Amino acid sequence: MANVGYIGLGLMGAPMARNLMKAGHKLIVHNRSQAIVEELVKEGASSADSPKAVAEQSDFVFTNLPDSPDVEKVTLGADGIREGAHEGLIFIDNSTIKPETARLIAEELEKVGIQSLDAPVSGGDIGAKAGTLTIMVGGNPTTYETALPLLQAMGKNITYIGESGAGQIAKAANQVIVAGTMVAMAEALVLAQKSGVDPARVVEAISRGAAQCWALDNKPQKLFKRDLAPGFKASMQAKDLKIVVDTARTFNTSLPLTAVSHQLFEAMVAMGNGHLDNSAVVTVLEALANTTVQTDTELS
Amino acid sequence: MANVGYIGLGLMGAPMARNLMKAGHKLIVHNRSQAIVEELVKEGASSADSPKAVAEQSDFVFTNLPDSPDVEKVTLGADGIREGAHEGLIFIDNSTIKPETARLIAEELEKVGIQSLDAPVSGGDIGAKAGTLTIMVGGNPTTYETALPLLQAMGKNITYIGESGAGQIAKAANQVIVAGTMVAMAEALVLAQKSGVDPARVVEAISRGAAQCWALDNKPQKLFKRDLAPGFKASMQAKDLKIVVDTARTFNTSLPLTAVSHQLFEAMVAMGNGHLDNSAVVTVLEALANTTVQTDTELS
Repeated sequence: MANVGYIGLGLMGAPMARNLMKAGHKLIVHNRSQAIVEELVKEGASSADSPKAVAEQSDFVFTNLPDSPDVEKVTLGADGIREGAHEGLIFIDNSTIKPETARLIAEELEKVGIQSLDAPVSGGDIGAKAGTLTIMVGGNPTTYETALPLLQAMGKNITYIGESGAGQIAKAANQVIVAGTMVAMAEALVLAQKSGVDPARVVEAISRGAAQCWALDNKPQKLFKRDLAPGFKASMQAKDLKIVVDTARTFNTSLPLTAVSHQLFEAMVAMGNGHLDNSAVVTVLEALANTTVQTDTELS
Repeated sequence: MANVGYIGLGLMGAPMARNLMKAGHKLIVHNRSQAIVEELVKEGASSADSPKAVAEQSDFVFTNLPDSPDVEKVTLGADGIREGAHEGLIFIDNSTIKPETARLIAEELEKVGIQSLDAPVSGGDIGAKAGTLTIMVGGNPTTYETALPLLQAMGKNITYIGESGAGQIAKAANQVIVAGTMVAMAEALVLAQKSGVDPARVVEAISRGAAQCWALDNKPQKLFKRDLAPGFKASMQAKDLKIVVDTARTFNTSLPLTAVSHQLFEAMVAMGNGHLDNSAVVTVLEALANTTVQTDTELS
């Protein structure tokens, strides 16, 4: 069993750290907000005052932070992980950040002997708690093999994608489809509603054919009950789509559909709905069409 | 067993008509191109010289034609189904056309005592042959009950949606999601490719999470082998999306994502690729990013 640091104990990070502890590892945590730190300490973790201090005590150190600058600061900034470098230390980032930032951090940490993996996840807080996350990994294949037992404590579908940053590219591709299906589902529901047709019957009719998707399987029943609680916050979806569009630009790639998805999620944030589930992007389409999706039909 | 007319024996219509015959009905066919008519006559059908003549000999008359004007002409035009009106005749349209055209035809035919159902299908030529189509039905509920045994000979997931035109609305909603998922999948693949990451590994990683969709389950393995044969032709996808966008406008509905999907399929037609499968919309994204999606990895 290893000494494992975890920095960033949010909606995703806290249950992921807990699963590492449950797998028998010694957990050292650090977080801006202290309430969750105290909770995990009660459950058997220890805490450290800085990312540097976490790194010094750990064989593996994980981060799970909102955006690229946060991960850059915690790794390369003052009192950062870099300053806690020691032989054999492996850094694993579970955040969703820019692939180019992931590569930069990996290069900088390698200079002080720290091996890095970018290992963004998909599956939401439910998957994080259940330990069933999808994990997409970039970095050195040997480092991946060494870290795999830890990743298996947190996820189920774990795929090695390629060199540093490749995990983040896979996550970006994932978000292209997740956002596209959410918006397409929302447009389908609004079209049905405005045409005077029961949107629930439409969902029943189309959900087993070529329109089948995770979004259509999981979200309409919640939307019809106006249950818009996250799941996966729209503000995070908007942030991830900004990463996708920026990354596409870096690689001279044009993504017209994703550009629209991105703008619709930005609109959702602008409307003050960024705290809702990403499926609540239907509220943007409803606003554009001056309607509200509703039904008396119970979905089977 | 009934006398059943079928007009429009294309990629979809011919196998659907065949399934009606297999179910024991007497089939009377009519088609512009004669080769398929002769084939079905050899198999036991009879043929008639006009839609009017088909209607005169039938209890039920089906159409399966490319676009709204075709169905309008065959029903309401000279020697059309209207002129073959007789007591108890039911008209069922399996084409994908404008909901407002479906409603207009139903109204006009009702004046001469013909009941109508709009019953567009989804599931492609494979579903048509296997009799496993999804069928979305609009019209009078009693007429639907009367026609249901015939629909069950052609499809598996049959849903009554609502009054005349409601089946076409459901099909429009279906196409919003089918097109959205195809384009999103294509953008994800092109992003991976241009970022220097193996698109097949990305597909493996993301296909079991929130990005899961029929398009991602069924199309990448074909695209990687450059198997772009239809399935469902891109030119028909473009035509269907024009119907969606026109219908949305009729009902004061804004569909920004679908507008982009529509334009990308129109681009595909403009590029001379309208005869390929709708998943080959990846060729448009490839052109926009000056790349070709490829892999040496075999998808599991």
